[in-house]
Amino acid sequence: MAHTAELIAVGTEILLGNISNTDAQMLSERLAELGIDVLYHTVVGDNPRRLREALELARTRVDIIITTGGLGPTYDDLTKQTICETFGRRNVLHPDLEVWLRGVFAQRGRPMTANNLAQAYLPENCTVFQNHNGTAPGCAFCEDGVHVLMLPGPPHECALMFETGAEQYLRNLSHDVIRSHTLRIYGKGESDVEMLLRTRIEKMSNPSVAPYAKPDECMLRVTAKAGSDSEAEAMLRPAVDEVMAIVGEWVYGIDVENLESVCVTLLKERGATLAVAESCTGGLLAKRVTDVPGASAAFVGGVVSYTNGVKNQVLHVPQALLDEHGAVSEPVAVAMAEGVRALTGSDYALSVTGVAGPDKDDRGNDVGLVYIALAAPNGTVSKECRFGKRTREHIRQQAANTAFDMLRRNLQALS
Amino acid sequence: MAHTAELIAVGTEILLGNISNTDAQMLSERLAELGIDVLYHTVVGDNPRRLREALELARTRVDIIITTGGLGPTYDDLTKQTICETFGRRNVLHPDLEVWLRGVFAQRGRPMTANNLAQAYLPENCTVFQNHNGTAPGCAFCEDGVHVLMLPGPPHECALMFETGAEQYLRNLSHDVIRSHTLRIYGKGESDVEMLLRTRIEKMSNPSVAPYAKPDECMLRVTAKAGSDSEAEAMLRPAVDEVMAIVGEWVYGIDVENLESVCVTLLKERGATLAVAESCTGGLLAKRVTDVPGASAAFVGGVVSYTNGVKNQVLHVPQALLDEHGAVSEPVAVAMAEGVRALTGSDYALSVTGVAGPDKDDRGNDVGLVYIALAAPNGTVSKECRFGKRTREHIRQQAANTAFDMLRRNLQALS
Repeated sequence: MAHTAELIAVGTEILLGNISNTDAQMLSERLAELGIDVLYHTVVGDNPRRLREALELARTRVDIIITTGGLGPTYDDLTKQTICETFGRRNVLHPDLEVWLRGVFAQRGRPMTANNLAQAYLPENCTVFQNHNGTAPGCAFCEDGVHVLMLPGPPHECALMFETGAEQYLRNLSHDVIRSHTLRIYGKGESDVEMLLRTRIEKMSNPSVAPYAKPDECMLRVTAKAGSDSEAEAMLRPAVDEVMAIVGEWVYGIDVENLESVCVTLLKERGATLAVAESCTGGLLAKRVTDVPGASAAFVGGVVSYTNGVKNQVLHVPQALLDEHGAVSEPVAVAMAEGVRALTGSDYALSVTGVAGPDKDDRGNDVGLVYIALAAPNGTVSKECRFGKRTREHIRQQAANTAFDMLRRNLQALS
Repeated sequence: MAHTAELIAVGTEILLGNISNTDAQMLSERLAELGIDVLYHTVVGDNPRRLREALELARTRVDIIITTGGLGPTYDDLTKQTICETFGRRNVLHPDLEVWLRGVFAQRGRPMTANNLAQAYLPENCTVFQNHNGTAPGCAFCEDGVHVLMLPGPPHECALMFETGAEQYLRNLSHDVIRSHTLRIYGKGESDVEMLLRTRIEKMSNPSVAPYAKPDECMLRVTAKAGSDSEAEAMLRPAVDEVMAIVGEWVYGIDVENLESVCVTLLKERGATLAVAESCTGGLLAKRVTDVPGASAAFVGGVVSYTNGVKNQVLHVPQALLDEHGAVSEPVAVAMAEGVRALTGSDYALSVTGVAGPDKDDRGNDVGLVYIALAAPNGTVSKECRFGKRTREHIRQQAANTAFDMLRRNLQALS
């Protein structure tokens, strides 16, 4: 029987909107890979009564409860005490954790304030999870057939503790294997994709096919449940082929991270390099490319030309072109791409110039008007985009997506 | 009496970790401003039974339920039907919405597929919220003293619908006013800040003081509840002064967005301009500065020099310096900052060079070693930072934060 899980985040700062519950996303993704069905996310504040009620409810409807947050040294961190009360366990000092904790502070050259010692307390007879990124350890125990895992709230602590401790604990519980492949689509919306695939989606249950909207793109996940990896994989292959035959035209990759990582991979395969010249995206293209580990093998750098002065003096966009067409124009996009390609000696160069808003530019160009150019060994192409009056962030991300998709199609010799 | 709210997000894609529940954060922040206490976030999948159970529970424990998601045209979008069943209302075609919907598709030049018509159905006798960013309208109604609001899942649709419809609906319910000021702190951790303020935090209840950890920084929120804005404000002023007297040294702003927005504001006040030269941050500084609306008045642009070639040819970092000290060194950081300042003619220039990981660089420098320089009218300063073996993203964000804080302190003539 498949295990079911509820994630309970503890933190008034989440209910106040100060921070987002990113741990829930990370854990959900990892639990899905382990074949554990996450049925609920719950968030409560730093309030022992409501946390207790949430725990009492959770133990009736799932067999794995994972809490995040509330393990720290401050006085509103109440998760451990409340869990101990709910499940009838004592919260006790773990002497080895006290030694470790004092060592961490000594190593950092900071005095250990008294409140920090609370972090060396955990329920009796639990499996301890070390915290390699912070000072609050986590733990797990099983009571009446319900597994309770406590992880810290800060995302980098939570993620590392999951990998180094909680994951193995959970693997030991699971038998079923869930495997999936994700087809990533750019340039076609969720409802269009679903219409194209409707009959397939309804027909398939294992493997199943489900479309998901992501910001500015869409994904199709093909999922199989089986007794082993190889069995699941064998079920997935024909299902993926069937879906690809219908929507393959817009699929930019299978099981890939994003458009920029596909670009970096293709560039590396071809031994080619990329540079960027950015106006309205203001560094976003460069930032997204350099988010990809190992991007340095393909990415040489770029210029953020936020003023006409920098466009002219650094990128050598002719002043006459800027005067005649304005900075937001197709000829300037082309000159920026060709300029940064010449400046850096890269094989490929992308450029973006446009109006990200919130206001029209001084020539009266609409918010959302963006020109994108790609200078490549086989010539320069450019594109006019109208992303509409959306948020600044949305327009910038869309412009970057479109630019990366142009590069990807060129590298794959597609239209 | 204060209103209490539960946010229920509907979407298997959240439980699978494909997307994060960002709507909950946005709504929580906005509801706090309206004086509505958000007590729970709940996420359920596209499962009518579990959604119904969540609704039945929510109506017993809060008086405002806001759902997000499940309003779209695809067949797993079940929120409206389930809410209608739970609260005993009919889901009916709203003819005016059908007209509007057909108009939206006509304007986009796309045929309206049959499944889209489901979006013109809403509970009878509800307040309709227009969707200015998409095709799924939302709505609100009140049943047995419980207000139920339905908003769409995609974040830009949800945010705009809140502003243009739901917010006014909620304002009409509320009497209490909650006002708060947020002190943003860089360079001092949450537990240190709490220790410094402990006695004040425990003593104060209205106004209250609470510390929150954000990624790489910390915030203090001072909050007052009162019958009017001016009354709340009068309560807040002395509380903020008291806290500032203790931790003011590390406060970079009150009610400000982030470090980069403070930098942009200070630059504009002084009529000064900024350029950046980035190696390991790869465009992140430029991206964060240009995230600030109106940054173009102060930001001229920058160079992402991901290779030594670009550092030398574009930024004119002497080749001898690169050979002798390596790209990750204090002299190179200084030369990068001074180089981009000369190239662009800006008043100030920030540079970053370091090892973001995942691996050591080819000179064996540790992951997390970063040099930052600030070239200013009164000279150039630089700094060596060791951020430790953290994630690539964490090191890059920390480097950017430290750079912006150096600029802020220089602009405010602090050390």
